[in-house]
Formats: sequence, C-alpha cells, structure tokens
Amino acid sequence: MPQTNKKSKKKLEYLNSQQIVKHIDIKKYDVRKLVDAMGDMAFQAKNLNRASNIYVKMLKDKSCKIYLTLAGSLFSAGLKNIVVDMIKNNMVDGIISTGAIMIDQDFFEALGFKHFKGTPRVDDNILRDLMIDRIYDTFIDEEDLRVCDMTVAEIANSLEPQPYSSREFIREMGKWLVKNKKGKNSVIRTAYEKGIPIFVPAFSDCSAGFGLIHHQFNIKGNKVTIDSAKDFLELTKTKLNSKQTGIFMIGGGVPKNFTQDVVVACDVLGVEKDMHKYAIQITVADERDGGLSGSTLKEASSWGKVETTFEQMVYSEATIAFPLIAGYGYHSGAWKNRKETRWNDILDK
Amino acid sequence: MPQTNKKSKKKLEYLNSQQIVKHIDIKKYDVRKLVDAMGDMAFQAKNLNRASNIYVKMLKDKSCKIYLTLAGSLFSAGLKNIVVDMIKNNMVDGIISTGAIMIDQDFFEALGFKHFKGTPRVDDNILRDLMIDRIYDTFIDEEDLRVCDMTVAEIANSLEPQPYSSREFIREMGKWLVKNKKGKNSVIRTAYEKGIPIFVPAFSDCSAGFGLIHHQFNIKGNKVTIDSAKDFLELTKTKLNSKQTGIFMIGGGVPKNFTQDVVVACDVLGVEKDMHKYAIQITVADERDGGLSGSTLKEASSWGKVETTFEQMVYSEATIAFPLIAGYGYHSGAWKNRKETRWNDILDK
Amino acid sequence: MPQTNKKSKKKLEYLNSQQIVKHIDIKKYDVRKLVDAMGDMAFQAKNLNRASNIYVKMLKDKSCKIYLTLAGSLFSAGLKNIVVDMIKNNMVDGIISTGAIMIDQDFFEALGFKHFKGTPRVDDNILRDLMIDRIYDTFIDEEDLRVCDMTVAEIANSLEPQPYSSREFIREMGKWLVKNKKGKNSVIRTAYEKGIPIFVPAFSDCSAGFGLIHHQFNIKGNKVTIDSAKDFLELTKTKLNSKQTGIFMIGGGVPKNFTQDVVVACDVLGVEKDMHKYAIQITVADERDGGLSGSTLKEASSWGKVETTFEQMVYSEATIAFPLIAGYGYHSGAWKNRKETRWNDILDK
Amino acid sequence: MPQTNKKSKKKLEYLNSQQIVKHIDIKKYDVRKLVDAMGDMAFQAKNLNRASNIYVKMLKDKSCKIYLTLAGSLFSAGLKNIVVDMIKNNMVDGIISTGAIMIDQDFFEALGFKHFKGTPRVDDNILRDLMIDRIYDTFIDEEDLRVCDMTVAEIANSLEPQPYSSREFIREMGKWLVKNKKGKNSVIRTAYEKGIPIFVPAFSDCSAGFGLIHHQFNIKGNKVTIDSAKDFLELTKTKLNSKQTGIFMIGGGVPKNFTQDVVVACDVLGVEKDMHKYAIQITVADERDGGLSGSTLKEASSWGKVETTFEQMVYSEATIAFPLIAGYGYHSGAWKNRKETRWNDILDK
Repeated sequence: MPQTNKKSKKKLEYLNSQQIVKHIDIKKYDVRKLVDAMGDMAFQAKNLNRASNIYVKMLKDKSCKIYLTLAGSLFSAGLKNIVVDMIKNNMVDGIISTGAIMIDQDFFEALGFKHFKGTPRVDDNILRDLMIDRIYDTFIDEEDLRVCDMTVAEIANSLEPQPYSSREFIREMGKWLVKNKKGKNSVIRTAYEKGIPIFVPAFSDCSAGFGLIHHQFNIKGNKVTIDSAKDFLELTKTKLNSKQTGIFMIGGGVPKNFTQDVVVACDVLGVEKDMHKYAIQITVADERDGGLSGSTLKEASSWGKVETTFEQMVYSEATIAFPLIAGYGYHSGAWKNRKETRWNDILDK
Repeated sequence: MPQTNKKSKKKLEYLNSQQIVKHIDIKKYDVRKLVDAMGDMAFQAKNLNRASNIYVKMLKDKSCKIYLTLAGSLFSAGLKNIVVDMIKNNMVDGIISTGAIMIDQDFFEALGFKHFKGTPRVDDNILRDLMIDRIYDTFIDEEDLRVCDMTVAEIANSLEPQPYSSREFIREMGKWLVKNKKGKNSVIRTAYEKGIPIFVPAFSDCSAGFGLIHHQFNIKGNKVTIDSAKDFLELTKTKLNSKQTGIFMIGGGVPKNFTQDVVVACDVLGVEKDMHKYAIQITVADERDGGLSGSTLKEASSWGKVETTFEQMVYSEATIAFPLIAGYGYHSGAWKNRKETRWNDILDK
Repeated sequence: MPQTNKKSKKKLEYLNSQQIVKHIDIKKYDVRKLVDAMGDMAFQAKNLNRASNIYVKMLKDKSCKIYLTLAGSLFSAGLKNIVVDMIKNNMVDGIISTGAIMIDQDFFEALGFKHFKGTPRVDDNILRDLMIDRIYDTFIDEEDLRVCDMTVAEIANSLEPQPYSSREFIREMGKWLVKNKKGKNSVIRTAYEKGIPIFVPAFSDCSAGFGLIHHQFNIKGNKVTIDSAKDFLELTKTKLNSKQTGIFMIGGGVPKNFTQDVVVACDVLGVEKDMHKYAIQITVADERDGGLSGSTLKEASSWGKVETTFEQMVYSEATIAFPLIAGYGYHSGAWKNRKETRWNDILDK
Repeated sequence: MPQTNKKSKKKLEYLNSQQIVKHIDIKKYDVRKLVDAMGDMAFQAKNLNRASNIYVKMLKDKSCKIYLTLAGSLFSAGLKNIVVDMIKNNMVDGIISTGAIMIDQDFFEALGFKHFKGTPRVDDNILRDLMIDRIYDTFIDEEDLRVCDMTVAEIANSLEPQPYSSREFIREMGKWLVKNKKGKNSVIRTAYEKGIPIFVPAFSDCSAGFGLIHHQFNIKGNKVTIDSAKDFLELTKTKLNSKQTGIFMIGGGVPKNFTQDVVVACDVLGVEKDMHKYAIQITVADERDGGLSGSTLKEASSWGKVETTFEQMVYSEATIAFPLIAGYGYHSGAWKNRKETRWNDILDK
C-alpha cells in the first residue's frame, strides 16, 4: 500500500509541510459582481466576462452537454478543487485531460502525496540529487511519484489483460480508490462516482506510462494494453449521444484538439451532428506560430468544429482566470437544473 | 485509390495552384558563417548559435543517438524537407511527433495533396462552407483530408487485428507508400526505408484517429488497436539500446515530454541510464504558466531527464529558426561519420 | 469650449452610447479572501498574491513613498477609476505615465468624451473613413480627439512662454479643468487637487504633442517648450525627498525605466539614496528579447535600482490583475494611516 | 577625456575581453536565396519574406523616404553595424530611437567602451556590488556608463543655454565625436556625417538624462533644456518634406508611436499628407493586451497613419530577424539609386 516516503532533513527544507499547495475553493468567493463589472471594460477583462457568460449559457441550455479540457500543470497549482466542484454540481459532463494532470497530480494527491510551494530560482542539480522534481515554482517528491507509478502498475496487474481505453483504465483507478478508501476529494474518484468519463488521449505520456511499461515489461503472457483509438471512438459516442455540446478549455494541446475533432468524427461515422455550439478557452498561447494551442476558435470553425456565435478566448494564465470563470458559473446557480449525464453508464454497456 | 478531388471554381480561388507551400531545402543555403556570427551577439541570436553548435556536438559524438521531437503545424508550413534530409543523411535516429504533422500533413502530401498559402484574415464561415480548413495562414482541402482519413482506415482494415504501437502502424503506412509507389519524399516513407522509428504518442488525435474509428466502428470481430503503452516501452528500448542520447525539439507538447521521460522509464525498468546528454528546443512558449511546452531544460534536469551542460532553448518561431539550426548541422558535415541506426530492426524483432 | 461633435448615423453604429467603457470601482468588490487563497496556489496566482502583499507592505511602511507607473492603453480599458481612488485615498504619491493614458484618455474623458466597446475584427479602412480610431477592441471618435489636441494648444497659448516640465504642464491642465468645471473624476484633476505630480517623460508622444506643435508652429515669438530634462530632475528630487520608496508598475516602457533610474540619478547628483525598497510589476512582456519592459526586477537590481527582497512580477494582462492587486490594497485599509505627500508643493517652490 | 576604467580582477571575470559582443556585418552574408525560399513557406518565415520585399519596395520607390524606429536593447546585442551600414548606403533617411540604444549603447561604444557576453543566470546582487549592469545575457561596466553620463554633461555644459530638440543635441554629440576623433563606426557619428536626423522622443530616459540633470543641477543661470515638442515638430517637418514615406520598425514603444503620429501631425498643421505607404515591424509583443507595441499595423490604419497595402509584422526576436530583413535589403542593391536626403540640413536652417 503506498505511503509517503520518509524524507531526509535536507529534503524537508524544500518539501516543507508549511508550504503545501492548497486548492482554491470557488464556492467561498462570489465573484459575480466583479466579473459583471469586467463586462464594461475592454481587453481581457471583457473577454473573461464574455467567456463567463457563455459558460452560464451552456449550463442553462438543457440540450447542451459540457466537455472540460485540461492542459498545463493545473492541479499542482491549486486548481483541482474547482474541477471537483464542477463534477459534484453537474457543471461538466465529460473531461479530457493530459496525463500529468490526472495521474501525476490528481491520482498522486489521492494517494496522500502533496505538491509544495517552491521557487523557479533554484539549482536544479541540487533538486535532482535530492530526488525533488520541479514544476516551475512547485516541488514534488520524486520518490512519492514512483509510488504513484507503481500503483498504476499494480492496478494494471490486477486487470483482465485486454485493450482498454484510457477512460476505462481511469474508471478502474476510480474504483481502486473507492476500494482502498483513498482520494475522497480527487477528480478521478469523484468522476467515477458521478459516472463522468475522463479521457487522456496520450495516456502513456505521464506517470501511468511508467506503471504500464512496468506491467508490460514484467508480466508474462497477455498484457493490458491502452487502445487510443477506442478513446476517440468512445468520446465520439458521447457526442453522438448529445443534442448540443459546449467546450470549456483550459490550455490547449491534445485535449483541445481531440475534443474539437469529435464533430468531424461523427461525420466520418456517417452521422451529421451540429458543431460545438459553445466554446471558451483560457490560454496564453499565441496564434502566430500556427500551433494548435493558440489557434483561434474561429479557425476551428473553418474545420467545421466550433460555431462562431458563442466562442471566446481569454488570454490569461489559468490560475487567475479559471477561478473567476468557474466561480461565476458556480455562483450563477445555473447548474441547479442540470442532471447527472453518467456517460460512463452508456459507454460501459 | 486516393486522388485529388475535383475542386469547384470558388474553391480554387482559395486553393490556388500558384500558391502551394514549398518546403525549404537547407542543402541549398550554407548558413554557417551567418550562424557563426550570431555567436558573438546576444539574446536569441546567441542562443540559436549555441543550439546549432550543440546539435553539431551531438552529430560528432559517436556514442550519441539523436531524437527529433516535432510539435506545431510544422510540415504545413514548409519544414518537411528538412526532416527528410535529416533522415537521409543520418542526422537523426528516432522521431517523436504529433499526429497532425505525420498523418494530416506528411502522409497527406504523400498521397499527392497540397498545402496552400492563405491568410488568417478571412471569413472562416465561408471556408467551412467550401470545406476548406485553415491552419493560421495556410489552407487545405477538407475533402482531400477525408481521403487521407479513409486511407488510414483502409490500411487498418488490411492489417492483422491486434494491438500495434503507433510506430508499428506508421511503419505499415511506410510500407503501404512503397507498395503503392507514393510519397517518395515523405518523412514516413523515407524513415521506413531507413529503419527509423516514428512515434506518435497521441496517435488518435489526428487524421489517423478518424481512420481508426472508422475501422473499429465498421469491422466485425477483432479489431486493430493502438497500444500507447507499447509506444512508450518501445521508445524506452531505444534509450536502453543507446550509450548517450541527445534531443532536438521543435515545439513542446507531448513529444517533448514523452521523449524526456524515457530516462526515468529506464530506471523504472531497473536499468540506470545517463540523462539525455544534449538537448535543444525551439519554442515560443513561456515558462511562466508552468506548462510543459515552455518549461526550461534546467527544470527537466531536476526530474533527472536532461543534463544541464549542453542544453539550450531558442525563443523563436520554428519556421525561422529550424532552417538555420538544421542547416548549420547539415553544412557542418558532422553527420558524414554517422551510420544508420535502424532502430526499427531491433524493435521489430 | 470643447464639446462632443455631432456624430453621423453610420458613426453611431460603432460609437454606441449603450457600449461605453465603464471604469471598474475596486471599492465595491472586497477581493481580499480570494487573493489570500491565491497565496497557497502556484504560478501567477501566487505571484499576484505576493505582489498584493508587497503593495500592502508599501502602504504600511511609514517611511515609504509610492510611485505608480502606467503604460499600455489602460484608461481606455476601464482602469481609470482605480487610479482616481488610489489618489483620493493616499495610496500613491507620484505618477509616471505614457502620454496616451494621461492626455488621449484621461484628459479626453475629462472633456466629456468617451471610449466605446468595439471589436478587433473590423475593417480598419471603414473606421478610418468614419474617423474612428481603434485601440484593440475599443473605439474612439478621432474628431473628439482633435478637440483634445486643440485644448492642449489652447492651454499652451495661455501660458507664459518658457520651458516647462511635463509635470508643470499637466498641473496647468489640472488647473484648467478646475477653472472650466470639467473632469471632476479625472486623474489629472484629482491629482492636481491632491498635489500629486504626474510625469510624462515622452510628453510629445501623444495628443499633447499635437497641441504643442500647433502652438509652436502658429505662435510668433517665444514659445512654450517642454523640458524633458527638468522632468527627470524633478522626479529625482522626489526621491531625494523620500526615506524609502516603492514602485507599483503597470506595464513597462519609458515610465518603468524612468522611475527605476531615479536611484542612480540621486547618486549622479552626489546623494546616496537607498534603492527602491519595494517593486511590483504587472506585465505580459517576455524577458527573452532583452527588452526593458519584460526585464526582471532582479536585473534592475544589478543596476542598483531595485532591492530584491520585496519585488514581484505578475504575468497577467492588466485589466484582470490590476483590479485585484489594487483592490487588495484598498480593502486592506493600510492607506488609512498615510497622509498626503503633496510633492507638487515642494516641486513648485 | 573619458577612458576605460581599470577593472578589478573579480570584475574582469565577468567583463572578459574574450567575450565582447561583436556586431553582425550583413554585407558578408547574402541571405537573398534563403529569404526568397521563405516566401513559399508559411507563418513567420513567410511574413519575414514579405517584410523583406516591402523594404526593397521602399528602397526602390524614388518618392519614398524611410524612417527607422529602434526600441529594445538592440545595440548591446550586436545589431549596431546593421544601422551603420543602412546609414552609409542611404538605406534610411531618419532614425527614431529610445535613449538607451543611442546613448547608453551607441555613444557608449563610441567612447571606446564595450558590451560583454554574459548570462541571465547570475546573482544580480554580486553584479551590483561589482558595479556591473546586466541586460538579459549581456554585462556592462556601470563605471564606464558613468563616464558616458558625464560626457553628456560636459557636452551640455559647452552648449549655448537654450532649448534643443533631442535631434539637435544628438547632432552636437556627433560633432563632438568628430572633433574628439572618436566613434568612427558609431551610429551617432555616421548619421551626423550623412546629415541624417536622430530623434529620441524620451531623451531624458537614458544616460543622457543623467548628464543633463547633472548639468541643470550644477550650472548657475540659464541652462540647456530639451524641448520634446520641438522634436515632434521637426519630425513632422520631415514628413511634410516627403512625397511618400515608409517605416521600418524594430520593436515598438515610443519610437513606433511617435513616427506613426506624424501623418496626423501634418493634418493638425493644416497640410494633408498621405499615410505612411509602407510599414514593417519586427516584434514579439502581443496585440491582446491592447498595448501600442504589439498593436497591428491594420489598427494604425484606422487612425489614418499607415496604409494597409504594404504593411507586414514579423513575430520574431530582433537579433534573428533584423539581420535577415536588412541583409535582404542590402544585397538587393535597391539602395544604389537612392541619394542622401540630409534632412538635418533642412531642419538646421
């Protein structure tokens, strides 16, 4: 059973129990009036206001299912509880994430480990010698992370050897947490309990990858495999199952692209579906390098993925803008008329 | 057999045969003196010079294998031939890429389709109606892209139904191109011929994904699946097989993270390997949002992934910096003493 | 006497009285708990929290005078009232600004003109034909701006022909506003009434420049001139007059550099003064191009300008971060023990 | 007479004579074919190509005068000789710059001082103790810079006490260099010899400011003053004197705004002139914060300042893009038919 490693005195100077990253609780701060006022300003304050209002529109639209895409080192930075609250209050129906957020950060904390406030101005060679990993201005214990890797391996070892979508594997991780009475406030467990699918399209690109290759390398005979095509097929089925959809994107990367693509995927499977009706994105990425992360939602419209009526990008680092937009959505109360979608129940059939 | 769709007159105004993106040929421009002079300047010119020299160092180091990671919309922007030349001249041993670059762009052009010079100042709704997709200032024909999707489906249909790594699937795409006498100057075919593995860790997040779900949705019985864990295991095996390694990163994203991770992956499999000895990255991403793409190579050192002695980030959009750095490497001639590594031969055993 | 021009019907479509930019009122939103929570997060939320706390420290430090530097199109975006409130509540002792903010935006609104919410996706040629000027997503009436230019000319014509610092000229503009019963809530008038100096080191680079060249071009004999050296001397005198100083910087540019320089200026005049003890900056500028705007406050420390103990940069667009940091300072109440500094009284002697 | 200070041994470790920044010589590298090839690519390579071609167009247009605006720490980074070559070869008619570039960097080197290659990863407190100033990854000797300050004071002391435009003062600095046989390859001296005006609209915001306040603080009676309104009037006169104009902008800031403004200034003086017909800008600034530096040239068009037909922004750090664009212009030979404009002769009348 995983447990926090005993840390050396030197290590404790960096991983200080007084310096634990704490997750912000949007329920505590009614930001509505502040965000309303931003709507009469300009530049990114106005964009943040508009994105907040589009999110409320999504929540109010009874025919609309909501995808949340997550990229960037968000949970190590204190944004985990926002997602937990969104799940608990039916403010999201499906999650598409990078592996680091879900495994290295969420599952990691579910095991009882912590992220520590640090600084980018540090000698990384010293950190390495101490087995401390740095994420910009946060520190984690690499030894804790290895426990996380091995827990994934353990779960893989316990499963029927066959292909799994990342969603199915993460569902099993949720089940494991319940069984082992861990991670009560983790995203993986809460989503499991609420039947919300979590897709990690590049599932090996994180702590899970380490666990899985440990499994595949050491197990004789048939192995657990992760079928990334099945991920896409399952996500497409959620779109097929929805009348309208909206996307709330934090950062870009694979989660942004993957989720936008499902509209076209429906068409490839022979079913014409509406484009994503609503789309908002928080990002600092620039469009001028032609990369996907910073590409405008208007550009996505040329691909037939996103409608241009209700789309808004907000140019801001996520730790500042996400609490405001999600907080606005929460305090609007618009989610109160939404019900559980439990896509997992459909996908698991 | 795929073929360019007949385009409407209106469509031809946007997809003009006089406006085809042409790939730059680094062999033609000896940039060495220019880049040498940059070494006595400051800021990014100096960084570009240092990165170029580190690349030459990698090429000269006989014990060093070289990974190239690709993210961003690089081949649609005219950078494909650089990679082809790097492959042909043993300037790279393994490639890790986003799916869009390899499938939507490289395989797409291998099928005879083109990218067109366009503009970001256009009405995306008009483009969508014409089935024209925009990537910043380039246009492609969505109908051509559908042919690309379906060619992947066709290849999947023709394969033994079992789990494949993305590398294995892309190898089959290379084989298909040879057999169908297509894509002579594509990266996928050239890499296939040179035994160079191409990994796409988020393989469903691109045109391949559309082809694969078409396959899985329509085929009865056992299906082709894409095992992303196998990808990571295979990439790790290439590291296990190498005395020293260097990484040449264009952009960040999953390819950057995935490739840095193999050092730790070796450790997880119980084999201690040196960190990547050399590492250079071209990126416009910023470190201040804590995201992986802009995270410094020093930060990667805290994770035990990259040595700090020979690492250099260059803050530049790739279409400007990649031709200069790769061109410097090419004209140095340092690759002349390198041999084919043919990792595919080892991995296919 | 200036007055809003009658606008054509076509023009009114863009300059819509329902779409006037309104200035945010930080007094209404007690953001303390929200910003406190950010202190246990990471990345820019943590930085924003630390900057807020440093600002409170400045306010509490009885020996500390506070400079506010302003760059970027801040007042057209709804940030004017924050500065007015800072002035009224003794939360700032001196202001250093770009000309556009003070003249084209603050004095402009003092004359009764408005900024209008617009969009960056518009045909600028149409705007030009209508004499509408665009600032990203805001619009103003160029004809109104010409009235602003000419009012400056009128003020210049009324003054004794001699060299003025920008501070002296702006003080005269404040006096003019009082006399003409205009701009009750403008920064220029409020600062005038509170004896707070406003320096615009590049004073001709704005609407004032147009007024001044109109004056110099048309007046016979001696003319009003703007002595930029006197500006620097006067600003240096405020530093000489202070025990400790702190800087609150919004954006970079000339105001940032000019204000940091006064420490060295004291030394050049033969008086050794402490560096700026506190320094915070909100900016999206990047340090990697070597430019001043994005240069770190640590770099400023090498120049002997800023102490490194209490400095913090916040990577955020100003319309989002400035209300939070200034609001935190306001609701802290730490300004209640501060008194008027009235540097103008000293400088006017 | 100024001379390099004797440096301590410790100081020489940072200010190493083997590590002097050397200015790139665009005459040596014929980049035309490389830049031509970029024209068939996409993203910033294509933009760089287009900007280069617009510059050639300016050079070929016999009715067109060319302004060069300079912002950012350009000359400390090795870009000075490009400007010298542009001046010598009639590739520019007027220069508008920040003070730091012209005084702290150009005049500083004219006095025999140097910039040294350094690193941003250094303890700035140690640098300060050694009186070494850091500009990102370059170092200079603060003691040398003080000599530069005092040389400006000396020049001010020697002049007739009256208002000067920055251009007039800088012309005197050029005269001083000739007389003192210094700075043969400086921009200030070369421009002086070629009759090219240099405007520094925020002239006190640099080493000149220190010299000028030393002058004003210590001189009894009448003083030299710097009339920033005269700057604007003189620059406007150069526009009045030109049939067509083009702007080549490196960075943004005051020089960009000031130069764009002259079109409107002509109108204010009652003379209708064409907008700037050509405009190119190299910048990394972003438009999304509404700031001037990153504002698009299309936005400038709404203000009636820049025509939209031949404008192009290039998103690149200047040390990489400026040698390519200016080099393209140089090797095009298009300047060979241009003559000296000698605006100074007109302005000095």
